[in-house]
Amino acid sequence: MAAFEPQNPDYNAEVRKRFAQQPYNMSIGAEVSDVQPGRVEVILPARDDLLQHNGYFHGGLIAGLADIAGGFAGWSLVEADQGMLTIEYKLNIVAPGLGDHLRAVGEVVSRGRSIIVTRIDVFGMRNENSVLCATSLQTLKVMKLPSELLSDAA
Amino acid sequence: MAAFEPQNPDYNAEVRKRFAQQPYNMSIGAEVSDVQPGRVEVILPARDDLLQHNGYFHGGLIAGLADIAGGFAGWSLVEADQGMLTIEYKLNIVAPGLGDHLRAVGEVVSRGRSIIVTRIDVFGMRNENSVLCATSLQTLKVMKLPSELLSDAA
Amino acid sequence: MAAFEPQNPDYNAEVRKRFAQQPYNMSIGAEVSDVQPGRVEVILPARDDLLQHNGYFHGGLIAGLADIAGGFAGWSLVEADQGMLTIEYKLNIVAPGLGDHLRAVGEVVSRGRSIIVTRIDVFGMRNENSVLCATSLQTLKVMKLPSELLSDAA
Amino acid sequence: MAAFEPQNPDYNAEVRKRFAQQPYNMSIGAEVSDVQPGRVEVILPARDDLLQHNGYFHGGLIAGLADIAGGFAGWSLVEADQGMLTIEYKLNIVAPGLGDHLRAVGEVVSRGRSIIVTRIDVFGMRNENSVLCATSLQTLKVMKLPSELLSDAA
Repeated sequence: MAAFEPQNPDYNAEVRKRFAQQPYNMSIGAEVSDVQPGRVEVILPARDDLLQHNGYFHGGLIAGLADIAGGFAGWSLVEADQGMLTIEYKLNIVAPGLGDHLRAVGEVVSRGRSIIVTRIDVFGMRNENSVLCATSLQTLKVMKLPSELLSDAA
Repeated sequence: MAAFEPQNPDYNAEVRKRFAQQPYNMSIGAEVSDVQPGRVEVILPARDDLLQHNGYFHGGLIAGLADIAGGFAGWSLVEADQGMLTIEYKLNIVAPGLGDHLRAVGEVVSRGRSIIVTRIDVFGMRNENSVLCATSLQTLKVMKLPSELLSDAA
Repeated sequence: MAAFEPQNPDYNAEVRKRFAQQPYNMSIGAEVSDVQPGRVEVILPARDDLLQHNGYFHGGLIAGLADIAGGFAGWSLVEADQGMLTIEYKLNIVAPGLGDHLRAVGEVVSRGRSIIVTRIDVFGMRNENSVLCATSLQTLKVMKLPSELLSDAA
Repeated sequence: MAAFEPQNPDYNAEVRKRFAQQPYNMSIGAEVSDVQPGRVEVILPARDDLLQHNGYFHGGLIAGLADIAGGFAGWSLVEADQGMLTIEYKLNIVAPGLGDHLRAVGEVVSRGRSIIVTRIDVFGMRNENSVLCATSLQTLKVMKLPSELLSDAA
């Protein structure tokens, strides 16, 4: 992975703040577990309503988690008044999403002025065991944050 | 869209039964609104915990809904003892997911013996208004259903 | 397919001119067969050096042709001083590329100010027979053409 | 990258033989530069008919090269009587393909019994300089080679 210089010295706090503002992240119980410049880890603890009849995490959650991890990996590299918009992503499901939590690692592959490309791996975690369950390639667009998100209270 | 012959005469009931067996579908409140051979529509009514701070459906839900609609479009074409596994999909978000419900239309593009390819469009719906918010291309694998899903009680 | 208004009244001539300026298109022998606003068809006649040992068109050519057809479908909708940059695409190969020529049909699915999304189908053509061999979803970026491409001689 | 055990002890010679049998690879002048279990490098020297008017390699070639590198990365892991079929791939173009040659590095991410997923990076190379120009995620299907490819003469 390439090393990237953050543009916002408060990238770590910024990522965690923006993450917590998204009700979807909160409703599924996702948590930011690590923030580096161009690299963000997110985990999702298992919960009855998130699992399929066979005890696996649903593909929609795996995709959502990948999208979040990649999106915030990109977000860690932009200015304080900028945010991320997902243009598209592609996700390969390579094994059932099984474990007591999922762990998604998003990394920036390429940072352009307006387009950021990320790569995300999602793992099913149980005790010491980590099994790759999905891998993704994502395209993000850098956007100017709307003013209501830039106030002190935001 | 090509016309496809279903292999299972009860494809309609089968799709609805398998859909209802997936707790994720139930937990987000998704509903099957139409089933044709090789074409399935799913809707997702808005609900507070499904929306972002800006009132939009989260991308993870749009992806999950696309995955479901495409997966069951494929499922409508296979034998009674077969099911669908998502190998991968790619999703373009083209507009915010806005409206009182989302509508996802999955259609089979190509049916092979072991691989089925589907195309899915997701629309934000408000009154008479329908706005394309995402489009997806998905690869499914035909699998033999595990025996516990084939019992009379299943 | 949605109907789109071209911004450049000379979109048809523009597409054909820009197409002919790309040596790759010329070297493989691709030809523009139809231009509508937001929809472009390109064909590729079979030639010994384009085929595999089994007589099929190589996947790289199918991908290249899809990229071209989608790119010019987008190009048909932009201003005279704008062009297209491919950000990414995803391609499903659903059947061998077989026939005396390939036919790629690119259509714009969504036109934003800076991002255009297209969908492309590629068919193997023999006599009256048309077989879908690939389907693709592509993301384009609208760019300002460099000045050397805007002179009268260009 | 995970370490993989090859199933065919002659995987190196096998990859080079199958590569040389594809006329497309020969016609564009691609060469295998390295073969490891689950990892294959391919290079493509610049040539007038491969370049655009601006001196860049065309996206179709970059895609074709990525497809080849990923396909043979998968091929290095299968039995002697098996080969690879590309189901689909997605490619992000992140910079112009510029240099005196392209270098594509394909790596297996996940090996299933019938499905192999690979990741490919393509670099524009000039002197000591290496610039990432594309990154790709690819799905392959393991297939039984047709008998005419398994004879001693093949």
